[in-house]
Amino acid sequence: GGHVAAALRELRCNCLQTTQGVQPETISNLQVFAIGPQCSEVEVVASLKNGTEVCLDPQAPFLKKVIQKILDGYLSL
Amino acid sequence: GGHVAAALRELRCNCLQTTQGVQPETISNLQVFAIGPQCSEVEVVASLKNGTEVCLDPQAPFLKKVIQKILDGYLSL
Repeated sequence: GGHVAAALRELRCNCLQTTQGVQPETISNLQVFAIGPQCSEVEVVASLKNGTEVCLDPQAPFLKKVIQKILDGYLSL
Repeated sequence: GGHVAAALRELRCNCLQTTQGVQPETISNLQVFAIGPQCSEVEVVASLKNGTEVCLDPQAPFLKKVIQKILDGYLSL
């Protein structure tokens, strides 16, 4: 049941720290992880077009705008 | 340069179709893919707590609310 499923997941957080000042145009992919057995905090991981990954502050005011821009297709290459 | 980088990426879209009626509480992870060389459309892939993945409509009205709920930490297990 739940215990087995939890044990099979990767039981750790993804983010040690968050990065500020990321330019929206450099983001190719955003992952939003809900709170769960793997981590007690919400995590947002941005994959950048240069191949690196950074963590963003889920409560940062600019994040909502970035997500909306991506959803609207404004951030094409 | 750009051509090589593009060739090294997985050059295809993730989503063939989108799913409606997904319950927000069942989502463990949301991925938002910006338009890029791999796909000419914005894509949103939701990983569900039962281990499956579904694609969501980037323009669906409920998606913005789901994202905000996850960011606010409302959707904990």
